[in-house]
Formats: sequence, structure tokens, C-alpha cells
Amino acid sequence: MPLSSEHQAEIEAQRAAPQQTLRAVSTGMEGHLYTAYPVLDHGFIRVVDYMGDDSAICQAARVSYGKGTKSVQNDEGLIRYLMRHWHSTPFEMCEIKLHVKLPVFVARQWIRHRTANVNEYSARYSILDREFYIPAPEHLAAQSVINNQGRGAALEGEEADRVLRYLRDDAMRCYDHYEEMISDEGQQGLARELARMNLPANIYTQWYWKVDLHNLLHFLRLRADSHAQYEIRVYADEICKVVADWVPFAYRAFEDYRMGGATLSSTALECVRRMLKGETVTQENSGMSKGEWREFEATLT
Amino acid sequence: MPLSSEHQAEIEAQRAAPQQTLRAVSTGMEGHLYTAYPVLDHGFIRVVDYMGDDSAICQAARVSYGKGTKSVQNDEGLIRYLMRHWHSTPFEMCEIKLHVKLPVFVARQWIRHRTANVNEYSARYSILDREFYIPAPEHLAAQSVINNQGRGAALEGEEADRVLRYLRDDAMRCYDHYEEMISDEGQQGLARELARMNLPANIYTQWYWKVDLHNLLHFLRLRADSHAQYEIRVYADEICKVVADWVPFAYRAFEDYRMGGATLSSTALECVRRMLKGETVTQENSGMSKGEWREFEATLT
Amino acid sequence: MPLSSEHQAEIEAQRAAPQQTLRAVSTGMEGHLYTAYPVLDHGFIRVVDYMGDDSAICQAARVSYGKGTKSVQNDEGLIRYLMRHWHSTPFEMCEIKLHVKLPVFVARQWIRHRTANVNEYSARYSILDREFYIPAPEHLAAQSVINNQGRGAALEGEEADRVLRYLRDDAMRCYDHYEEMISDEGQQGLARELARMNLPANIYTQWYWKVDLHNLLHFLRLRADSHAQYEIRVYADEICKVVADWVPFAYRAFEDYRMGGATLSSTALECVRRMLKGETVTQENSGMSKGEWREFEATLT
Amino acid sequence: MPLSSEHQAEIEAQRAAPQQTLRAVSTGMEGHLYTAYPVLDHGFIRVVDYMGDDSAICQAARVSYGKGTKSVQNDEGLIRYLMRHWHSTPFEMCEIKLHVKLPVFVARQWIRHRTANVNEYSARYSILDREFYIPAPEHLAAQSVINNQGRGAALEGEEADRVLRYLRDDAMRCYDHYEEMISDEGQQGLARELARMNLPANIYTQWYWKVDLHNLLHFLRLRADSHAQYEIRVYADEICKVVADWVPFAYRAFEDYRMGGATLSSTALECVRRMLKGETVTQENSGMSKGEWREFEATLT
Repeated sequence: MPLSSEHQAEIEAQRAAPQQTLRAVSTGMEGHLYTAYPVLDHGFIRVVDYMGDDSAICQAARVSYGKGTKSVQNDEGLIRYLMRHWHSTPFEMCEIKLHVKLPVFVARQWIRHRTANVNEYSARYSILDREFYIPAPEHLAAQSVINNQGRGAALEGEEADRVLRYLRDDAMRCYDHYEEMISDEGQQGLARELARMNLPANIYTQWYWKVDLHNLLHFLRLRADSHAQYEIRVYADEICKVVADWVPFAYRAFEDYRMGGATLSSTALECVRRMLKGETVTQENSGMSKGEWREFEATLT
Repeated sequence: MPLSSEHQAEIEAQRAAPQQTLRAVSTGMEGHLYTAYPVLDHGFIRVVDYMGDDSAICQAARVSYGKGTKSVQNDEGLIRYLMRHWHSTPFEMCEIKLHVKLPVFVARQWIRHRTANVNEYSARYSILDREFYIPAPEHLAAQSVINNQGRGAALEGEEADRVLRYLRDDAMRCYDHYEEMISDEGQQGLARELARMNLPANIYTQWYWKVDLHNLLHFLRLRADSHAQYEIRVYADEICKVVADWVPFAYRAFEDYRMGGATLSSTALECVRRMLKGETVTQENSGMSKGEWREFEATLT
Repeated sequence: MPLSSEHQAEIEAQRAAPQQTLRAVSTGMEGHLYTAYPVLDHGFIRVVDYMGDDSAICQAARVSYGKGTKSVQNDEGLIRYLMRHWHSTPFEMCEIKLHVKLPVFVARQWIRHRTANVNEYSARYSILDREFYIPAPEHLAAQSVINNQGRGAALEGEEADRVLRYLRDDAMRCYDHYEEMISDEGQQGLARELARMNLPANIYTQWYWKVDLHNLLHFLRLRADSHAQYEIRVYADEICKVVADWVPFAYRAFEDYRMGGATLSSTALECVRRMLKGETVTQENSGMSKGEWREFEATLT
Repeated sequence: MPLSSEHQAEIEAQRAAPQQTLRAVSTGMEGHLYTAYPVLDHGFIRVVDYMGDDSAICQAARVSYGKGTKSVQNDEGLIRYLMRHWHSTPFEMCEIKLHVKLPVFVARQWIRHRTANVNEYSARYSILDREFYIPAPEHLAAQSVINNQGRGAALEGEEADRVLRYLRDDAMRCYDHYEEMISDEGQQGLARELARMNLPANIYTQWYWKVDLHNLLHFLRLRADSHAQYEIRVYADEICKVVADWVPFAYRAFEDYRMGGATLSSTALECVRRMLKGETVTQENSGMSKGEWREFEATLT
């Protein structure tokens, strides 16, 4: 993801110019501001702005005049209570703005989270860079044979080589033709809004993405999950690290109640109750389908 | 709106503790932070937090790495272009958080603007204060005789006196009974979530309200408008002053293209064209209904 | 809730005029259309329109050309799978429109569910009816002594009588004055938009409320729950009955995975695992606070 | 866009099975249900379901018990009034569900309209068809030399030929490799979620898209506009035809007040007033920039 030296200089200039503010400041987050954290081969996430901190969550929950904190301990207790009982509105009082560089096929999944603000680099207006995602060999996964929507082990040998060659060569050829088509040297030059259609979905795009903490945590729960596609999960993982420093109480509660937790159905709950009474419960007498039972067993071990 | 001295002290404490930040800072907005600006007889608005400034709008529009400003003049030009062509997403990149105290009937209109985050003081959990909106005599308006949804001149004499007496006495009596019902002295005490139903709609409530700049401007266009009910318009007017200092370029563009502008229908536009050619256009030959024609004439004079 | 005979006639007229359509039809839902089901003392819910059925959920999940059903059994399996794995978008493909009559303090809770469309009866434009919610004696609950936001047992004897008298008398007096203030007999008459502020929060209002099935189920999960205030829960309960006939597969999955299920935190899950291995887990060695442990025990019994 | 005969048969089966309903029926819309209207070379739009009609808009605006129509004439007047004064909530009471087949680069623009429900064909789960958008010669436009985000005249001669050859050949080669990579004959086969990244943005995808009438009209205003990219405009144009038959009063009002109308800034309005008084207004004394003046002149002629 090497940034150009020009971009690197712009980022350093921003980090070198602190100003005074009366707003709530998260010291943990200030340490991350503007820095680009690499993701995949050419991507990154970087925090461009934020609003609020743990104490702002409590302040809103209490609709208070001042900082709203009796004590730091009270604040963590309140935040855990709010998270446990799905009181989501106080978490909406924090906001984050990210600059993200990501492959188009990842962007297409990401954008389905609608409650966010987005400004994407426009390929109608501007020319895209020659940067494509090519998976590292260990992530060149085979189709799963048990889950239509999943991956198996990494491809190997000649098959892996051929796939990588196709991905690289097709991307390069498509980009060569893109450049040739929009060129106005000795010809009119195709409209950019048309030429871009020749570019494959592993090309990188960029956007500014702004979202409140409640919706961000929902995004992270789904996308930092093991069922998410690897290529979006690595973005979610990187964002998790930043959030942990921004709002440490909220993030800890999120890890306990959302990420590490599980939702049991009425039937599953009844099985747990029976098992705790010493009964032997099997798929056959559980009331669950085979798929559900498999997931249930995985949850309990 | 006299704040309690305790609340006033909390606000002053917040204004007295500047910190360092690397984020974008709006100097104009820092001057307003936390201060409660009075609205109506007991209400106020005060800015609790904000994200972004004029330059953040441009930065997002350009998806840039650094501050995104070539020059201040370029920034204003770009902001005017975005406003004129309804490119709303860059304006969504600024966010504001307000603490508002307002009568319940105003809150009921306000909440219809859905794209915002709200935490309201809970009358299930807490006890409301004895504060009611009683209109100043000059705002005690008669029902309009031409517009079902409007006001006429102020009531006068005995009629005005009687209305004010009713409003005050009913509020006080309802509140006395509210207090008596929830009291646990010598009795069980009615649940707060039930007792509140005895309180009339001019009682004051409070909330934290967070919204992005695009949606805020939409709110202001509708609520700072002459057709809005006076009691919500005064809140919108007060917010306008703060926004003008926060994002001066965006606010100026908003005033020119939205507040002071007008939308003409296809029929109205055709009439303007005919008039500019010297034709005499009347309601009869305009193709407009009487109501539309009246509004059209008002727009052109 | 006796509807006026005029309204009753309008409803019967609508039920008497079936037409042909090529759209998906839910026979269960057709039986409910337009009928007003009473809630509380003057309220009701009635279905005014709907879009889709169980099979429409599957059709969208498969993005199919035809009805999208291989077999009815497949459809139920797919719907359960979607519900279990939080695939919410196919449920958004069904839509319902309700006409609801409800007290204002219930409407204020209800409206916080933002992802819905609402048209409320306008008290700026029209005159409200003299109808107020007065709790039945068994629902005149005391404030809970353990939960700030809850209820205890019903009030009794003289205290109950006094509360009911206050609620009734204050409502009647406020309404009398409302009527007197807006009257234009022998006076100008106060603007409706102002006069309404004298009305207490137990007055009834009405609205059309339109929502997709995913967001409706979210509403029902929170509002048909035992922690919800009784006065909104009875509306949610009534809506549940209608949904059960509209989309029986989706509703059954909702009951199993959402209503009857539970979300366990990472810590709680670890305790279950230890208990299933035969370990004795107590609050002290659980890693949970007392409040969390109490909720955990309630879940397992 | 030739549908397969299997799909065609499914559509015909749905059109051949009318059922009885008590809901509002739009006769104009019933004539369109399920039929696929071709757009571009392989795309289509088809209406899969709808809720409401013109009279449902009025019914919601009046929060009425019955059909809410005094007379058909009243209904059109009310709808025009609502449209003129930006009362958007009654239009949200109608809903439409479309099945759309469209190139990925068009889908990426379309999805930016967030207030809608979407289920897209999953290329993680399924295999995409070999169908790509190749512009007709007359739409193979050059880059505009005056507007970075626009098109000029169609390319001609050898340049046009070369562009078409690139688009076709690159698409075919990328698809060949896609097929080869996912094949499990004699190899493991690459995961579908990875293989899809080799496909260019002119490949076709499909989705179910559901939206309320207010948000649909907003979409149409922006996308059926001459500034929209041709490839999305043709979809908007086709949807316009369907809407005109579904809610004729609302569509007519939309054409008059939105599509054919114009928004004038405060400065532009002042210029019109001066011109109507006989003053000669030029760009120099108008207070507008050159760009604004050009747009202003275009509006008035």
C-alpha cells in the first residue's frame, strides 16, 4: 500500500498541526488520526475525523448538562447496561469518518450497510489508478464443498499459478485498454463514464465513509465475523483496533455481548435447560434440524 | 430560561477546559460550544459537539488525502456548485450535536425529521420539571380564516386574558396532580410512565439531537420558513445563527439557493418566458389554478 | 372503541368490494383487511394494505423470475435459515400499512422507530376528538421499587380512586377549555396549532403507519416484550396476531429465533459451558455483575 | 434481452392467474405486472408487486377510514397541492417492487439511493451469466471537452471499432477465465467469491428493488434527467412509463412541479424581477458567476 510521498507528506502535515478545541477529545483516537493502516495489497483505512468518546455516550443517555460523568466506574457500568439491553440510541451519539481504499467487489458488499454517509472517488469524473487486488497465495481459496457461500483450503501448484496469472494478466490488459480508450492523443477519446466499464472488480476505489458508533458496531459484528468474506473481514479487523482505542468501554462491552456472544433460539434454549437438568439431548430429540443442531453444538464447545 | 446555577456552572466548566486535537476545528463554532441560547420562555438550544467545517465538505467531495483545499476561494466556488446541483453527500460529512429544551408539541413536529439521532429525557424513568410554554401576548394568535393550518392576528382584550388564564391554570393543576399521583408519601405512588399522561403538550422536554449538515439544512429550510409554526421557527432561527458561524460558505450558499430561492413549476416557468417576451399573462390564461397563481405572483414581487 | 356508524359503514363498504389482481395474495391477511381490532379503551389497529407473503420472501432471496417456490416445505426451511442467520433484506420485501388509533404518549414511544412511513392526523389543521385513555383499574400500576423504569402492583382503594378522578377530571376540563378557546362564536378563536397544547398526553390521536416486515418484526420484538410499557405492548400483541396470519412461516421463525430466544454474552456462554461440564457456577465465580447474573438465571429456568 | 423460454413461461404463468383481493387495485398497473420491458442490450425492468394508488395518497393525507375520496377531481387537486408544497409523507404510502437486470456499473450508481430495499443476485453463492453491456454505436460517446463528467458526440470510424473490439474481447476473455477458474473438473476450483473479481463492470447483475413512491420520484428526478449517465437514464425512462399508468395524478403533478420545473436562487429570482420591470440584466450586473448565468439563461429560453 505504499502511499505516494506526496500523500504521505499531506498526512504528516495534518498530524503536525494540533489546535485547541473545547469538544470532547479521545486521547486514544488522536493517536490514530490521519495515519493510513495498510489492508490487503494496496488498500488502507485511516480515520479522518471523529465525534465523541465513552463519556459522550453516558452524557446523551442521561441528557445531561455537563460531562455527565459521576465517576469513570459508573460510566462503564452504564455502557454495559445499555449494550446488554439493546439501548442503541446513546451509541448513535458518537460518529467516525474514515478514508478507505478498497477493491470494488469489497465496496459492493460494504455499501449495503445503508445507514452511513459516503463520498466515493468518481470514475465518471476522474481516472482510476492501475491498482488491482491480487490475493496472497495463502488466500487463494478453493470453493467450499459444504457451503455454497464459503471457501475451502488454498489452491496449490499449477492451479494456483494459473489463477494468479489470469487475475494479473486480465487486470493489466483491461487497464491497458482502458487507458488507450480514454486517451485523447490522436483521437477523440472515449467518455470516462463508459471506459470504466472495462475494469474488473478487483480494481481499487476509495471513499470517505462516515457512520455512527451503533451502526459501525453492527457493521463490525457482521463483517469481522468468521462467516464474512476474508477480503472485507480484514478491513473490519483493522477498524476494530481503532475503535478499541477510541471508546474502550463501549468496545469491551461490544466484545462481550456481541462478538463473543450467541443468540439461542427458543428450541435451543429449551435444550440447554434439559441438558442442565442432566437429560441427554441429541439432534433426534432436540427439535432442531441437522443444520441447526450442528451450529448449536459448535456454540456450546 | 434561567438555567439553574448548577447547570450554568457545568457549562462554564466545559468552556474553561480547552484541549489539543488534530481534527478540523471551526473557530466560529468553538465560540458557541456549550452556551445555552434562550428560545421561547423556558427553552434553549446549545451545541454540544460538532464534526467538520467548510473545508471538510470539499475534502470529501474530492476524496482527498490532505486538507483538500487548493485555496479558500476554490472552496467557496466548489461548495456553491455542490449546493446548486443538489450534490448532497459532501454536506453529509459534517455533523452537529445539539442539546435542546422545547415544549412537547414542538418536539412532536421536530421528531418527524427521521434522519437524525435522538436521546430524549425519559418521563418513564425520571420526573419532569414544572415548566410550561405560555405564549407571549403578541404570539397568542387567532385561527387564520383563509388557511386551515395558519394563524391570524393576535387575540386581544378579554379573550386573550381568558386563554392565558386557561393555559396557566390547567398546566398548574395538571402538574399538581402529577406530583400528587407519583408521591410515595403515605401511599404507593403511581408509576411515572402512567402519571406523565396527565401532562399537557406545552410542558417542556429535553433531548440530545445529532444530525448531519445536509439533513440539518433540509430541516432549516422547512422550519425556518414563514409557513412553519412560530414555536418551531424560533428554534430553527436560532440554529441558523450557529450554522452561519460554523460553515460560513455552506450557509451562504444555502441562503442563496434554498432559503431565498423558489421552485417554479413547468407551467410557471412557461408563464415567465411569455412575460419576458412582453405577453400579458393573467391567471385565466396562465394554466394555473387560483391558488397557484397567487403563490406565483407572490414569488415575482 | 365503538366506531361511529359512519366509519363502520365505510369499513364494511371496503370489505364488500373484492377486485381481481395479479399480485401475490395472502388469504390469511385478506380476512383481516380494514377491520378495526380494539386496543385499550378507545384505540384500535386495522390493516389498510399489505404487499407480499411468505413466498415473496423466498422469491426475493432467490431473485427469481417466477413464484420462486420449489415446494412449500423448501420455503419454510429457507425462511428459517434466513431468520437464523440475520439475513434481513428478504424480509424487507413485504410491507404492511396500518391505521392506528392510540394515546399521544404511546405515539411518542412508537415514533422512535424511524424506519417507517407515517401520516398523522393534524391537530394544526383539524380538531381532535374528546377521547382520552383512562386505565382499567387492574392496569393502574404503582411505581416499581426495584426498577426506575417499571411498574409494581395495581393501586387500590382510595389512592386508585383519586388517581382515576384526577385523570378523568383534568382531561375533561382541559378539553372543555380547548373547545372554548378555539370556538369562533362571539370571539376570534385561538389558532388550533396553539390550542392543542392544552391537551394532556392521554388524548387519542390517529395515524397511517407503513413499515416493512423486517422493521415490523424488530418493533414487535421490542414492544411485545415484557419490558415494554403495557400500553404499547397491547398494540404490539394485536399486530402479532395479524402477522401470524399474513406470513405464517416468517412469524413462526420469528417466535422461535427472536421472541422465545435469548442472547448470551461471551461470559454467560462460558458459564453454560462450565455448567455442562458439571462445574458449579455461582455469581461470585461467574465473572458477571449481580444484575447480569440475575438475568442469566432467569434465562436458564 | 431475450428471456429464456423457461423464464418467459414463468412470467406468463403469473399473468394467467388472477386472484381476488380487497386491497386497492390500480388497473393501469395490473396491465404491467411481471412483464419484462427491455432496457439496453440485455437488461430489463419488470414490476413484481405494488401497493396503493392515487386514492391511497389522499386517504393517508386525510387519515381517513374509508376510501378517502370525495370525488376524483378533489383527489387530483389535493395531490397537486401536496406535491407543490413538498408534503412528501402521503406519497410514501405507495410502494413498488421491481425486478431489474442491469450492468454492474449502473448498479453501483443506483445503489447510492439508500432509502430502498434491495436483494441482489449473489456472485458469492451463484455463477453469473455471460452477458455484458456493449454500447450501440450511437451511444459510444467521446469524453466531453467542457464537462469533466459528461459526454460529447459519438466516436466514429476506426476509433469506434477499436473500442467495441476491446470491450467485447476483454469481456469474453475475462469470462472464459472466470469459468475456467471456478471449474471443478480436474482441479479444486477457485471460490466463487474470489473468481467474480475478474469480471468487468459491464457484466449484468439482477436485483429486486423495492421503494416508496416519494423516494422513487426523487430517484426519477435525478436519473431521468439530462445530466444523468445515459445507461441509467434509460432505466429511469422505462420506470416513468409504468408510474404514469400506476398513479396518473401523482405522475402528472411530478412532471409539472419537478421534471419540467426549475429552482431559482435568490439572486436569479431577483434578476427575473428586474427583467420583468424592463431592466436589461447581463451576467456582469446579475451577481451570478458565468456558470450560473449560463444555466439561468438556459432555464429562461
